[in-house]
Amino acid sequence: MDSPQAENFITVTEVGPRDGLQSEEKFVPTDVKVKWINRLVDAGVSRIEFSSFVSPKAVPQLRDAAEVIGRAKRCETTTMAALVPNVRGATNAAEAQVDEMVVFLSASESHNLKNVNRTISESLAGFKLVARIAGEAGIPVHGVVATAVGCPFEGEVPSERLVDLAKHYRDMGFIGIGLGDTTGMATPPVVERAVTAIREAVPELPISLHFHNTRGIGLVNVIKGLELGVTRFESSFAGLGGCPFAPGATGNICTEDLVYLLHEVGYKTGIDLEALCRLARDIESHMKRDLPGQVMKAGPRLQARGTDEVATAKG
Amino acid sequence: MDSPQAENFITVTEVGPRDGLQSEEKFVPTDVKVKWINRLVDAGVSRIEFSSFVSPKAVPQLRDAAEVIGRAKRCETTTMAALVPNVRGATNAAEAQVDEMVVFLSASESHNLKNVNRTISESLAGFKLVARIAGEAGIPVHGVVATAVGCPFEGEVPSERLVDLAKHYRDMGFIGIGLGDTTGMATPPVVERAVTAIREAVPELPISLHFHNTRGIGLVNVIKGLELGVTRFESSFAGLGGCPFAPGATGNICTEDLVYLLHEVGYKTGIDLEALCRLARDIESHMKRDLPGQVMKAGPRLQARGTDEVATAKG
Repeated sequence: MDSPQAENFITVTEVGPRDGLQSEEKFVPTDVKVKWINRLVDAGVSRIEFSSFVSPKAVPQLRDAAEVIGRAKRCETTTMAALVPNVRGATNAAEAQVDEMVVFLSASESHNLKNVNRTISESLAGFKLVARIAGEAGIPVHGVVATAVGCPFEGEVPSERLVDLAKHYRDMGFIGIGLGDTTGMATPPVVERAVTAIREAVPELPISLHFHNTRGIGLVNVIKGLELGVTRFESSFAGLGGCPFAPGATGNICTEDLVYLLHEVGYKTGIDLEALCRLARDIESHMKRDLPGQVMKAGPRLQARGTDEVATAKG
Repeated sequence: MDSPQAENFITVTEVGPRDGLQSEEKFVPTDVKVKWINRLVDAGVSRIEFSSFVSPKAVPQLRDAAEVIGRAKRCETTTMAALVPNVRGATNAAEAQVDEMVVFLSASESHNLKNVNRTISESLAGFKLVARIAGEAGIPVHGVVATAVGCPFEGEVPSERLVDLAKHYRDMGFIGIGLGDTTGMATPPVVERAVTAIREAVPELPISLHFHNTRGIGLVNVIKGLELGVTRFESSFAGLGGCPFAPGATGNICTEDLVYLLHEVGYKTGIDLEALCRLARDIESHMKRDLPGQVMKAGPRLQARGTDEVATAKG
């Protein structure tokens, strides 16, 4: 099996169980969540953001985080990461023995206020408390920056702000920085600017990229990230979630489509794409609506088809 | 205004009026077609595949090709191209004074048989007759190869076959060769192989690329085409059409998303993106269903939004 030590290995983080499910209207039963997560583990996904230790009032869909991780299959090759918004969340996450805690703030003050009702300084102060709890439990912390490549309220995000946050993350001992394209504002030049600035200032901090397909170019931005040497990307099964802000708009890039692309351009992920597609189709059935993922619908490119299966092209 | 002579200019062919509408169940009234095409002309689209001079029995949706071009706004900076499947089509297209005729065959025998009920040799023989009619009328001919980067029945398409067809096209005096990704099997390496092979063997024949987003990577393939120096791409308004063969699967890449990407990475198209988005939204309204285009829903990336417009991200 391909391991993270293999050449050309890309770590794909499946954020569906957290980022995909948190915005669903209907609660997905714990049993179902555990089954889906176990199928991700079996398919070889190397990192799963399985839930958020958030207040059940704020995000009732994820109120079962501790039960989910308590019952999910654990395996050495899959990191189980959870979002942790505050000290209480960190305490609960430590108790639940997660592999990694993920903290997050927004690159812009206005988005951070809107999202977590804190200033960026207040968020950073909270991270220190989380980091202490995590440290005592021997659990690494990963820091995310939402709206990292553009804020819907403030526009472009200056590279200096990203660099400043990256330095804070490094100083708190975080194992990496994730750049979140919260409302799909990433473009290849913007990605290049952000990644280059952080890497030059804080070269020891690994960067992961979390793109949305809100303007149709999520996977184009992945290609730019790959060109820049980034080896960690996040995506959601079936393309679920990612707070699309316009009717019909998509959010997170889709894991099956990402893995398909990575394999086709010569990267390894350790992931069984067909198993992933089966899972995505089951999730679509569960949700009872069309989800954005494409490869789960079309199948692998060289799958032979009968001549009655393919509509004519007339060009 | 940006002209095709400008540096970094990309010719975007809007195939929606032909490729998008041909597979719609409902006939789009001629008035509406003409209005949409005129809006494309006004938005600065440099080439429009406005219809097909095909038998009204085969494709009733396009039975008004002659009337459409007779009533549409003509302008020096917009080439009006029409699909021409046979001699009768060519005669009618010449009479209707189209700017360009487009002929097509499939790279694989089985797909060509299924699509046009001819062998590839028979198709090529037919092209000669079309080319003669076009030549007498002083109208250039563009040759398309469908399933150029993969056939759903036969799998990979050998580069030799593409080169052979390109030589035939050159010998018949065609002004270019279009590679059609009929069932969305293109990947960056496959695109590179195809484009490189044709360019090495027939360097004088301009290549245009027509991708589908069936597996989510249509625009990734565009980026590869751009890297290879290709300057002509085809797409459909709102992402309409392109014979998706699986429920929920998408076909043609979307023009607004393509133009958005091209502008963001530094190319010129001469196209007013906002006008294009308004048209795409009107087309979506007309079709009364969700269409795949993303930028028409999300808007330009730096459009300022109120804090109540954007859902929170929670990461």
